[in-house]
Amino acid sequence: MSESAREESSLALEDPHYREAVIDLLGAIGYGEISAFERLAEDSKLSPTLEDKVAVASMAATELGHVIMLRDRLTELGADPYAAMAPFREAIDLFHTHTAPSDWYEGLVKAYVGDGLAADFYREIAAYLDARTRDLIIASLADSGHSQFVIDRVRSAIAADPRLGGRLALWGRRLMGEALTQAQRVAAERDALSALLAGGVDRPGLDLAAIGRMFTRITELHAARMDELGLDS
Amino acid sequence: MSESAREESSLALEDPHYREAVIDLLGAIGYGEISAFERLAEDSKLSPTLEDKVAVASMAATELGHVIMLRDRLTELGADPYAAMAPFREAIDLFHTHTAPSDWYEGLVKAYVGDGLAADFYREIAAYLDARTRDLIIASLADSGHSQFVIDRVRSAIAADPRLGGRLALWGRRLMGEALTQAQRVAAERDALSALLAGGVDRPGLDLAAIGRMFTRITELHAARMDELGLDS
Repeated sequence: MSESAREESSLALEDPHYREAVIDLLGAIGYGEISAFERLAEDSKLSPTLEDKVAVASMAATELGHVIMLRDRLTELGADPYAAMAPFREAIDLFHTHTAPSDWYEGLVKAYVGDGLAADFYREIAAYLDARTRDLIIASLADSGHSQFVIDRVRSAIAADPRLGGRLALWGRRLMGEALTQAQRVAAERDALSALLAGGVDRPGLDLAAIGRMFTRITELHAARMDELGLDS
Repeated sequence: MSESAREESSLALEDPHYREAVIDLLGAIGYGEISAFERLAEDSKLSPTLEDKVAVASMAATELGHVIMLRDRLTELGADPYAAMAPFREAIDLFHTHTAPSDWYEGLVKAYVGDGLAADFYREIAAYLDARTRDLIIASLADSGHSQFVIDRVRSAIAADPRLGGRLALWGRRLMGEALTQAQRVAAERDALSALLAGGVDRPGLDLAAIGRMFTRITELHAARMDELGLDS
């Protein structure tokens, strides 16, 4: 990052409302990745082979690496990282309780589609943030190179059993629905985050039309991911 | 690693018996670390706080990083890494089934004492190997800097509840007993590994007295770890 980007970031973070919103956001992403770690570690038990187990466990380990980045940045911002994550526990845990995979393939689709949705959403928000926070968020959402693994496994399973495709397509829609439900809940509860999205005197924000366009983009990216898996969205 | 060490290693690995033993050994360590990942990920669910959860999940992620190193080296040696790991699944899974922690503290002690025992044992064997294999094994057993976390947590829990110390001391002895049982099983079943320890015409091996000294060293290191945790061994 350039020196000027660093300065811009320090300046932005001097605004206490902005700083609070950034801490909220990093906390939400951090807790989301802790629970992604847990879910993937759990899914790895369902792996049909040792190779698959290592692939899914590697995805889990990557999520944990992101947690550490976010935790360290929260500490640097003078926040208690675990206190910053706590308000998001309930919504994220509920998302996972409501979308517990019943088999290996549902777990794979959830990892790919669910993480993809979360990443698209946070990337949209990151566009409104200072350069340093934006870079951190984008790095912490980086695909860990496992997408191709999921696509290959899911596509070949559907080729072998076409009915699986129907079931997984429904599953993908359910994941989208649950993700929206919990995201709305968080937005309603966290004033700082909502205010951030609404913008400020010196900072552009999202009006209703912009929020609409954002959801259109997220929905289109979701449909593209379902398509890559060979599923109707 | 120096050029001469690399050459020495290539030469040693031209001996098919030696190569087979190295593949066995890397497979055993690799599967051990996959299952350490799984066990730590499972233990992280028992964490009393989010901070503890992240600490234990980080230990799990570190183990997985080691698995990847070992897998890549096995592939480089022309072996199927997952086939190399398979023969050790039963013994290692049995070890974990027989030593399933009943609470958070048993999980912490198992992570510290169990991984320590495995590391001491493999380091002893590594001393008889070519430089490149030895370096890889030592790197793959590196403590991930979490020992202090376990020591702090266990010691302060015992200070608050001295009876816990008695229970965890018994637990430590049970871990040692189970580890020896399964290690003997593996040694009895894997001819290549046993032959490696026995040495060859051009390579020193372990006679009975040397094996005795090795177990004395391992026992002493185990006692030192128990002591660090504040437990009688």
